[in-house]
Amino acid sequence: MALLVQKFGGTSVGSIERIEAVAERVIKARQLGHQVVVVVSAMAGETNRLLGLAKQIDAVPTQRELDVLLSTGEQVTIALLAMALNQKGYLATSLTGDQLGIRTDAVFNNATITVVETEVVTELLERDHIVVVAGFQGRDSRNNITTLGRGGSDTTAVAIAGALAADECQIFTDVDGVYTTDPRLVSEAARLSTIHFDDMTAMARHGAKVLQLQSVEYAERHQVPLRVLSSFDEGEGTLVDFSTVPSEGAAGVAVKGQQALYRVAQPLEKVEPQLGLLGFDAWCYGDSQQATYIVAADDELARLNVIFEKTELAQPSVATLTLVGEGVEGNSAKVAALLTEKGVGVYQQKSAARCVSLLINGQDLQLAVEHIHKKFVVEPESLDNRPLLAVS
Amino acid sequence: MALLVQKFGGTSVGSIERIEAVAERVIKARQLGHQVVVVVSAMAGETNRLLGLAKQIDAVPTQRELDVLLSTGEQVTIALLAMALNQKGYLATSLTGDQLGIRTDAVFNNATITVVETEVVTELLERDHIVVVAGFQGRDSRNNITTLGRGGSDTTAVAIAGALAADECQIFTDVDGVYTTDPRLVSEAARLSTIHFDDMTAMARHGAKVLQLQSVEYAERHQVPLRVLSSFDEGEGTLVDFSTVPSEGAAGVAVKGQQALYRVAQPLEKVEPQLGLLGFDAWCYGDSQQATYIVAADDELARLNVIFEKTELAQPSVATLTLVGEGVEGNSAKVAALLTEKGVGVYQQKSAARCVSLLINGQDLQLAVEHIHKKFVVEPESLDNRPLLAVS
Repeated sequence: MALLVQKFGGTSVGSIERIEAVAERVIKARQLGHQVVVVVSAMAGETNRLLGLAKQIDAVPTQRELDVLLSTGEQVTIALLAMALNQKGYLATSLTGDQLGIRTDAVFNNATITVVETEVVTELLERDHIVVVAGFQGRDSRNNITTLGRGGSDTTAVAIAGALAADECQIFTDVDGVYTTDPRLVSEAARLSTIHFDDMTAMARHGAKVLQLQSVEYAERHQVPLRVLSSFDEGEGTLVDFSTVPSEGAAGVAVKGQQALYRVAQPLEKVEPQLGLLGFDAWCYGDSQQATYIVAADDELARLNVIFEKTELAQPSVATLTLVGEGVEGNSAKVAALLTEKGVGVYQQKSAARCVSLLINGQDLQLAVEHIHKKFVVEPESLDNRPLLAVS
Repeated sequence: MALLVQKFGGTSVGSIERIEAVAERVIKARQLGHQVVVVVSAMAGETNRLLGLAKQIDAVPTQRELDVLLSTGEQVTIALLAMALNQKGYLATSLTGDQLGIRTDAVFNNATITVVETEVVTELLERDHIVVVAGFQGRDSRNNITTLGRGGSDTTAVAIAGALAADECQIFTDVDGVYTTDPRLVSEAARLSTIHFDDMTAMARHGAKVLQLQSVEYAERHQVPLRVLSSFDEGEGTLVDFSTVPSEGAAGVAVKGQQALYRVAQPLEKVEPQLGLLGFDAWCYGDSQQATYIVAADDELARLNVIFEKTELAQPSVATLTLVGEGVEGNSAKVAALLTEKGVGVYQQKSAARCVSLLINGQDLQLAVEHIHKKFVVEPESLDNRPLLAVS
C-alpha cells in the first residue's frame, strides 16, 4: 500500500464525462490498496469564463477579489469529483485549500505556499476516504483567499505530497510522459521511463512544457518523486527522481520557439538585474558597444518597453535549443559545429551544469533539433563525455 | 449615520449590468454617511446551472458536496460586486460565510445559523469599507461548508443585522414593498408603509411571498427592523417593525392559490404529527368518519403518498384566503357570509391570533380576494373590531 497524490488538470476534468473518467482512474488506484489524495484544477474554460466576467467590470480587477472569484473554479470541480466517487460507492470528501490548511504568503494572484497542514487530510485517509483537494488556492495569514501562480495545481499537489511524505506525486496530463524532445517537431522523440530531477529542471527551464519549473524545483527540494502520466491512456509514464540515469547519451533536447531577439542600449550589468526584478527569466548577453541583447517570446516588446524606454527588435524570429544531460557541458563547440555544418544560423552558445544552449535562427529550429537529437540522444556515441575539460 | 445591512437577491444581481446597478445603490447609502454591509445571493440562474451539473453525476448528489458546489454561486457574486465598488472608487471587501464567521448546525442543504461572529466585519466597517457578504452559506463546527434552507440569503442578512445591532435590515426585491394583497390579483392592492411584525409573519405564513417566513420570525425574535424595497425603483418601501399599526381596518389579505385538498383515511391526531415531522406546514382538518383532509400545493400528491400509503385527491383546485390584522379574529362568520353571498364556494374557516382563514373553491379565488380586500382593507368600516367575543 502506497500513499499517492494524483493531480488532474483542467482538460482532464473539462466535462462531466471527463470527471467520471478521472473518478474511475482514482478508483483503480484505490482498488490496488493505495491511499489517494486527488488534486484538481478548474474545469477547462471555467477560469476564462470567470475572468471574462471580471473584465466586464474592470480591465484590471482588484487582485484580492480576483482570487475570491477564480478560486470558485476548483471548488466546483472538487464537489463534482467527490460526488462522482460517492456515486460509484467510494468514500470521498472534498476539501478547499483552506479546509485542508494550505497557508500562503499574501501575494494575490501569485501566492507561494508556506505551510501545508496535515491533520485534516490524514484523519480522512485513516478513515479510508479518498480526499479531493482544490488546487491553485490557499489562505494567507489574515484568512484572505489567495491563488498560486502558474502551474498552481501542480504546486499544490507537490506540496501536499511533500507534507504527507507521499510515495509518489502523479501528474496526469495530456501526454503520456516526458519525451526526449518535442514530439511535434521530431518523430524520433521517445518517452523517457525515468529522468533525473536535475535534467527535468533543465528541460523545464529551457522550454519543455510537460511540467512547470516551479513544481519540479519544489518536488526536488522536498524529495517528492514525481510521475508524469496520461489522463487518457494507460502506461507507466515517466518517473522523475534522483536515480542515476544511464550514462550514455544526453537526456534530451529542450526547445523554445517563437522567440525574438531584442536590443537595449544599456550594458548587460544594468539590464540583468532589472529583468530579474520583474521575474523575466531571459537569456541575455552584451556586445562590445555596451548594448544588451535579450531573448524573449516574440510578443514581449510592449512589456520590455515598460522596463527599458527604448527596446529595439534586433531579430524577429529566433529559437533556443538546449541539450540536457549529465556531462553535456563539454560539447558546446561540437554542437555548434554540427549545426553550422547543416547550414543552421547559430548566433550564440552557452554552457551550464547539465546544459548546452544555442541561440539559432528561428526558421532553422526543426532541422536543428532533429539533427542534434539524432546525434546526441538517438546515437549517443557522439557525446564527448568529458565535462569541464573540453568546455570551449 | 446608521448601520445598514442591505440584501440583494439573485434577480437583482443577475447580470454584470445589474451588479453595477446594485453597486450604485449601495454607494448612495454610503454617500449619505451610512455604514453598509451588503448580503448577496448567487446570480439568477447560477444555482440551477450548478445543480444541473450535479444531477448529471447523481440524481441525488451527496448533500455535503452539494453545499460545496452551491456555495460557489454566492462567492462569485461577492467578488464581482466588490470589484465593481472598488472600480467606482469605494473601499470594499468581500467575505464568504466562513470568512465573516457564520457558524451553523450540521444539517447540509438546510442549515440553521447558530453564531454570527462580528470581529472581522466590525473591523472592516471601522476602516470605512463596504463589506460584501455571501448569503445562504456558513460552516458547521467541523469546518464543513453548509448552505441554509429557503430564503437563505434573507436569513443571513437578518442574522448579521441582529449580531451587529444594525439600525435596519433592508431586503431589496423585485417589488417595491409589502402590499395589502397580491397586486397581480387585485388592482386596488396598495403598498403598506409600515406593517407590524406579527401581521407580517401571518401574511408570510399564509401566502405572501415578498419575505420568507423564517427570516421574518428571526428578525422579530432579534428585534431587527426590516425594510422591503425595490432593487429597481426609488421609494421608501415597507418598514416591518413593532410600531402600532393604524387600528382601522385589516392589514391585508394573504392568498394561496394552486392548492388541492387531499384525503387520508386516518384520524387528524395521527396525521398532524406526521406532517409536522416532515416540515409540512399544512392546514388540515378531520371529518366524522375519522378521515383527515390536507390542504397543500396541487403537485404534492407524490410527496404525501410517501408519508401516507394511500392519499386521495378530494378536490383538485382549492385556495386559501387569510384576512390578517389586529382584531380580525372576530370576523370569520362575517367573512364567510360575505363570500357565500357572492357565490364563492366556502369549505372551511378558522381563526387564530390576527388571522381569519377560509378554504374556498380555487376558481373563485380572484372574486373572493377582491371582495374581502374591498370590504375589510379598502373600506375598513366593515371590520367588526371586537376580538374574541364575536368568534363564531
